[in-house]
Amino acid sequence: MDSNHPLRIVIVGGVAGGASAATRARRVNADAEITIFEKGPAVSFANCGLPYHVGGEIADRAKLLVATPELFWKRFRIAVKTHHEVVAIDRVTRSIRVVSRSADGEAPSESIIPYDRLILATGAEPVRPPFAREMPKNAFHLWTLSDMDHLMAYIEAHPVKRALVIGAGFVGVEVVEQFHRRGLHVDLVERNPQVLTRLDPIFAKMVSQHMESKGVRVLTGESVSSLETSDGKATVAVLESGKRVETDLVVIGAGVRPRTSLAAGAELAIGPMGGIVVNDFMQTSDPSIYAVGDAVEYTHAVTGTKGLNPLAGPANRSGRIAGEHAGRGSSQPMGGVLGTSIVRVFDLTAASTGLNEKQLTKSQTPFRTAIVQAASHANYFPGAQSMQLKLLYAPNDGRILGGQAVGGEGVDKRIDVVATAMAFQGTVYDLARLDLAYAPPYGSAKDPIHMAAFTAINDLSQLPKLVNPDVDLDGLQVIDVRTERERQQLPLPGAIAIEIDAFAERWQELDPMLPTVVVCHSGKRAHIGASWLASKGFRDVSNLTGGMSVRSVAMALRS
Amino acid sequence: MDSNHPLRIVIVGGVAGGASAATRARRVNADAEITIFEKGPAVSFANCGLPYHVGGEIADRAKLLVATPELFWKRFRIAVKTHHEVVAIDRVTRSIRVVSRSADGEAPSESIIPYDRLILATGAEPVRPPFAREMPKNAFHLWTLSDMDHLMAYIEAHPVKRALVIGAGFVGVEVVEQFHRRGLHVDLVERNPQVLTRLDPIFAKMVSQHMESKGVRVLTGESVSSLETSDGKATVAVLESGKRVETDLVVIGAGVRPRTSLAAGAELAIGPMGGIVVNDFMQTSDPSIYAVGDAVEYTHAVTGTKGLNPLAGPANRSGRIAGEHAGRGSSQPMGGVLGTSIVRVFDLTAASTGLNEKQLTKSQTPFRTAIVQAASHANYFPGAQSMQLKLLYAPNDGRILGGQAVGGEGVDKRIDVVATAMAFQGTVYDLARLDLAYAPPYGSAKDPIHMAAFTAINDLSQLPKLVNPDVDLDGLQVIDVRTERERQQLPLPGAIAIEIDAFAERWQELDPMLPTVVVCHSGKRAHIGASWLASKGFRDVSNLTGGMSVRSVAMALRS
Repeated sequence: MDSNHPLRIVIVGGVAGGASAATRARRVNADAEITIFEKGPAVSFANCGLPYHVGGEIADRAKLLVATPELFWKRFRIAVKTHHEVVAIDRVTRSIRVVSRSADGEAPSESIIPYDRLILATGAEPVRPPFAREMPKNAFHLWTLSDMDHLMAYIEAHPVKRALVIGAGFVGVEVVEQFHRRGLHVDLVERNPQVLTRLDPIFAKMVSQHMESKGVRVLTGESVSSLETSDGKATVAVLESGKRVETDLVVIGAGVRPRTSLAAGAELAIGPMGGIVVNDFMQTSDPSIYAVGDAVEYTHAVTGTKGLNPLAGPANRSGRIAGEHAGRGSSQPMGGVLGTSIVRVFDLTAASTGLNEKQLTKSQTPFRTAIVQAASHANYFPGAQSMQLKLLYAPNDGRILGGQAVGGEGVDKRIDVVATAMAFQGTVYDLARLDLAYAPPYGSAKDPIHMAAFTAINDLSQLPKLVNPDVDLDGLQVIDVRTERERQQLPLPGAIAIEIDAFAERWQELDPMLPTVVVCHSGKRAHIGASWLASKGFRDVSNLTGGMSVRSVAMALRS
Repeated sequence: MDSNHPLRIVIVGGVAGGASAATRARRVNADAEITIFEKGPAVSFANCGLPYHVGGEIADRAKLLVATPELFWKRFRIAVKTHHEVVAIDRVTRSIRVVSRSADGEAPSESIIPYDRLILATGAEPVRPPFAREMPKNAFHLWTLSDMDHLMAYIEAHPVKRALVIGAGFVGVEVVEQFHRRGLHVDLVERNPQVLTRLDPIFAKMVSQHMESKGVRVLTGESVSSLETSDGKATVAVLESGKRVETDLVVIGAGVRPRTSLAAGAELAIGPMGGIVVNDFMQTSDPSIYAVGDAVEYTHAVTGTKGLNPLAGPANRSGRIAGEHAGRGSSQPMGGVLGTSIVRVFDLTAASTGLNEKQLTKSQTPFRTAIVQAASHANYFPGAQSMQLKLLYAPNDGRILGGQAVGGEGVDKRIDVVATAMAFQGTVYDLARLDLAYAPPYGSAKDPIHMAAFTAINDLSQLPKLVNPDVDLDGLQVIDVRTERERQQLPLPGAIAIEIDAFAERWQELDPMLPTVVVCHSGKRAHIGASWLASKGFRDVSNLTGGMSVRSVAMALRS
């Protein structure tokens, strides 16, 4: 590096971690010359807020504009060049080629800009499925501000009554809710057999059932094969099953992929998942060049393997680390990413952290699961809402491998507690003894976290063990310890009904030699009954985790 | 132990951990004979809910009755004897002396009951201050169901317009809110210079200012010297300052102390703080006798010292551990207690975990503090509420020593995250890289937890360092980087005003040789300004942590 000039830090892209990198670089290095080149019109915007403006929940578009180029200059002496696309990197001369397009349609101009440290925050881009190779006039992504503007302009100008959302990821389910809020009929088509693939199928089913209860038609396991158009507008989506979905408007949220052409063009290493390869300080295979945000492959905190994780939290964190390292040559390491995520779906919140069953199975990691239904706060205090909380943990030592929750108030808190424990390689035994804040409006002396941990610990010590909510009950001695009213509401055919409060008197009617499963609504009373039988010498007794509240969803999933 | 009979587990007291102990003992030991002796009329009730019934927020009294003796018998084969007081323990014969008083006024009868394992869940009792040696007819504690019933009956039957609450602990501030809800004028008198002594003074002041904004008169640093009575009712509280507080009703919440007379009578070890001494499995100095809940001294998770902690969470946990150990001879250890606690005070939530400044100073533990003002979720999403979040941490390695938060939505979540990190001896560096759940309705990509951790890390690396919000600014070069409007709203006399966006141009007006403090509203912009100066060679520059939002409270505290 030439010592006659200040350190030149150049950042490509303002959104996905780029702004974080720039401000952090400034804070550790007052003299550096810091420039952000951003292809789009805005240096930084609240991309997670876009769906909420579509439905009017965020009424003021200006709120989505997080910071202006003027503010960056005045406050941080960071130069921001919008409408400037970086088209190539010359690693030998340490310079980039930039094409600037002024907003008012002048001819583009090119320039060569030198750098000492280059930070790539090129982000991700929406995947465009084959059926949308030519985008109909009424089909949109929802990834950038201008996507949002085009979508909203179309809705304002046309008589839209039915909307089709293709892809049930975060953006998909958020925009479903916002379209519903605008009074549209909404169809949601998802190629996978479930919505929100970070959740295990039963938890995802709770979410799609809830969307259906709001009048949304959810078509999972269905792929769009083509869009029929009229006048350049999509009017019908033809599914591979042959189903036809009529629509006035299409939003495609079929996932995103890392934007790596700039990195690839400079022969920086690209990983097997398609993201830029980085080390723990976000340096690419060229140590003068960093990459951050959705464009990179992160290290997973549990498996240690590399993977994509297009989420705002890791983007910000990686930006901060790259900026610091670029600015002063050292930083804390990035460490692993858990992929903690959350989404609101109408009255529900769905959140997860760590690994799900599919990922654990794929990575051949042995695991067990416990599910509890619990109240957000003390049941005797008004307003308690129900949630399902699931822990995935190692059978040998109880290390937490993942957590999921679907429900009302307080889902975010419980997932953040699980994610925090996971950051320390915590176990279910650690969760059981957490000293959490309790007063009636906020929780219970035995928090849902504790209840889930107790259930997992009972399972690990076979006191009694748990079986999955979708277990095949044929040939088992099934004991239903619910009340008559509960049994009528959600029947469990073939089970022997012994209410829990009659259990102590009637358990001797049962056969201790048969493999036995005890079932209640949430798993709590069944635990009492199953413990009872186990202690009385029943050979093989277990508790159906999550009870009928979860099994009913599992059965709906199967049908 | 005689092997001709099942293990006899006897539990003294149903409320404070006793019920937990009993049910856990049953789950690990189906054959044990388990009996709870409870002096009062109810085996288990929601004591944390009592204040909320007084104001009608929990409308139905029956909701406070968690479980009946019948349920304990039917479901767990646990015998519950209410109106049975255990008056003595004979450790030699392993038996207790029990006096039963039937509810309808029969003569009491005595019996001797043998035990193999005895669990003392005798709880705590309200301290009765000298001025209340004789309780006036309109003065009440609020610790038991019958306290609550008497209080409410009095209010129903008498024209009560003014209520005086003596003691601003959890029960005190909760009942203040509930009285206010009933339309009473409320005076709150607290002997300490602040409310809620688990909080540091500035955070406590935020709470008392909020109570005052609701019309409550808060008199801190004021002791009641006597109650003047008329017709056996208190009419005026005379304070040591000479002030006179007229009232129609008095609630005394002057703290609680462990109920240990039974243990002391049996010569079990009592600790220096007045609680029963127990080991990590809740065994007293006699290993056949356990003690749990508010009656014991817990080990503090940070200091390792013994202390009282009358909170429901540790009570339940210790009960569970004692029950398991009594039932099968082994259990997980209790481990340390952080004393995490939370209380709702009108529209605010106040919560804390770990140690506060007073405790740290007393235990001669070096510490530093960082305070941030942050929004509960993304500011661009509707409904974000503000909170103040404080971290206390070790100057050498950043280990978290405590956390406090006061604000709206989401205070509980942040304190639970801090408490979880503390359970693993986490540092502020660990907090900074937590992978928390983010979507606009729930948080920010940079969560308040991250912002507080970043601030602490900057402090530890002197980038720049923090000074306390109540620092004496005399003789310092004070730079106010707020806008003109902010300066008018909360003036900072003597400061040099340079708005943050003019800082890059105007910083050279300042004297780099003077000790300098930069101030903004929350500490965020001041960090930018202070970093700037530090990097330009200013010798001694710091950021006023929490900014004017906190300093204004600190100044109110001083006046």
